[in-house]
Amino acid sequence: MTAWLDGGPADPRLAEARGLHYGDGVFRTLRVHRGELVDAAGQLAHLAADARALALHAPQEVLAAEAGQLLQTAALADGALKILLWRKASGRGYRPQGGDCHRLLSLHPLPVLRLDPATAGARVDLAALRLGEQPALAGIKHLNRLEQVLASRDWPAAIDERLLANDQDELICGTRSNLFAVSEGRLWTPRLDRAGVAGRTRARVLALAEAAGIAVQIAPLPVAALSSVQELFLSNSLFGLWGVAEAPGFRASAPGPLTRRLMQTLAHPPWKAAAC
Amino acid sequence: MTAWLDGGPADPRLAEARGLHYGDGVFRTLRVHRGELVDAAGQLAHLAADARALALHAPQEVLAAEAGQLLQTAALADGALKILLWRKASGRGYRPQGGDCHRLLSLHPLPVLRLDPATAGARVDLAALRLGEQPALAGIKHLNRLEQVLASRDWPAAIDERLLANDQDELICGTRSNLFAVSEGRLWTPRLDRAGVAGRTRARVLALAEAAGIAVQIAPLPVAALSSVQELFLSNSLFGLWGVAEAPGFRASAPGPLTRRLMQTLAHPPWKAAAC
Repeated sequence: MTAWLDGGPADPRLAEARGLHYGDGVFRTLRVHRGELVDAAGQLAHLAADARALALHAPQEVLAAEAGQLLQTAALADGALKILLWRKASGRGYRPQGGDCHRLLSLHPLPVLRLDPATAGARVDLAALRLGEQPALAGIKHLNRLEQVLASRDWPAAIDERLLANDQDELICGTRSNLFAVSEGRLWTPRLDRAGVAGRTRARVLALAEAAGIAVQIAPLPVAALSSVQELFLSNSLFGLWGVAEAPGFRASAPGPLTRRLMQTLAHPPWKAAAC
Repeated sequence: MTAWLDGGPADPRLAEARGLHYGDGVFRTLRVHRGELVDAAGQLAHLAADARALALHAPQEVLAAEAGQLLQTAALADGALKILLWRKASGRGYRPQGGDCHRLLSLHPLPVLRLDPATAGARVDLAALRLGEQPALAGIKHLNRLEQVLASRDWPAAIDERLLANDQDELICGTRSNLFAVSEGRLWTPRLDRAGVAGRTRARVLALAEAAGIAVQIAPLPVAALSSVQELFLSNSLFGLWGVAEAPGFRASAPGPLTRRLMQTLAHPPWKAAAC
C-alpha cells in the first residue's frame, strides 16, 4: 500500500489502522493520582471484557506493565491515562480476522471542570440528538463515538455535562459519564442493553450499593421522571461521582445525602491535585 | 501529551487522531482505471457533502491535486484510491471545534472477487445483525463502521456480498454496496434516511435512470419482497454494478435486462485489468 498523510508519506501503522478506518477497537480512560492508576485491575478487566465482545484480545499483563512504565517515564502525578486498542490489519475490508490488537497508551492532564465535584453540583442539559439503538454494541466502550461528537456541538459554557436519551425520551447516559437517580431511597440507573456506554465507575457504584444494602433499579429512566427524583449524580473514572444541581425538570442542592454517602464509600481521589 | 504505540513512541498525528479516537471523519473509495480516477469530480463533491453534514471541510482542489500526484508517483494502473478525512484535534474530548481535516490518501489493489461482475451474478446472504437507526448519521460515509465489521464476521467463501436490514426486516444496503431491485419495470432502492450509506454509484444510477425515463421508487424494501422482484443488483464504486443471481428468496440469471442496460449506460471500467 502507498499512502500519504497531509501530502507526505504516511506511517503504515496509521494508514492501515482499523481503528481509524472502521473504529474497530475499544478504549478505557483511567484516573492517575499521585503517580498511580486508580482501579487499574478493574479497568483492565472491564477493557478485556469489552474487547471480547468484539472478538478482540486485550493483553492485560502487557497493558499493565506498559502503563506503569509510561507513568514512570512521564512522572505524571495527576491526570488521565487513555488505553486504546484496535484490531491489527489483515488485508483491506471490513471482515475482521484475528483478535490481536495495537495498543495506544496516552497520558493527559485532567480536563478543566467549571466546578469541583466534591463541593458543587453539576449543571446538565439534554442533547437534542437521540441515541440510536444497536444491541450488538450497546454498553461497549468502542471507538464509534460520532453520536457523542454530534451531541457535544454547541456546548454552552455554563453546562458541565449533557445527557443523552433515546427516541422514546428515556435517558441513557451523559456524553462522558453514566447517570444515576435516587428515588425514595432506591438507586436508579438506565439499562444499557440497547444504547450507551457502561463505565467502570458505574459498575463500581452498583457493587458498592449492593454491598451496602441499597436497593438498585436498572430500568428505563424517562426524561419526565427527573422532576420527581430526589438526587441525581454522574459517574466517570476521572471525577468519580458528581452530584447534579440542575437538570431539565430537576433542581436540588448537590451532592445529596445518598450521593455523598456513595462518594465516601467509593473514596475516589479528589479532583484538584492541589488539594491532595 | 505523552503516548506510546505498541510499547514505543507514538506519532502524535496518530495518538491525537480524532478519526481513531471517535471516528470523527468521512471517507470515499474511488476506482482507478488505466492510471485515472473514475468519476473523480463527482466523488469529491459527494465526499464534501458528507463532510459538511459533520461540519467538516473537505478541500476538494487539494485532494484532487494530491490524488493525481499519488497516482503518478505510484504508477498504479488499476486499483482503488481511498480518501479518508478526519477532524484536526483541538484538545481532548468529544466536542468538535473547527472543520479542518487531516487527509489520508491510500492506493490499494482491487479486492479479489469470486466472479466477474460483467458476466456472472453475485450470491448474497443476509446478515444476522440488524442495523441501528440514527437519522443524524444515516447516508453519510463516515468512519463509524463497527456494524459493517460485525456483520462481516463468519463470511462464507461462497458469498460475494452480505445484505443488511433494519429490525423491521427492511433491507438497507450491502456491507460495501447499495442495493437495487427491479420490479415490474421500476427501479426500487431502499431509503437511507435512518440507516445505511449512500454510495456515489447509487446516486449515479438514480440520475441515469431518471435521464432514461425509468421509474424509480426510493422506499422501504422488505426482505420478504425479494421473492417477487425480477432483478436485483448491487452498486459500488469499485465494481460499478453487479447483478445478483442468488439472494434469500430470490434466484435469477444475472445480470437481468434492466441491470445490463444500466451497466452499459454507466460504462464503468471492467473488473479485470487484463481485459482492458
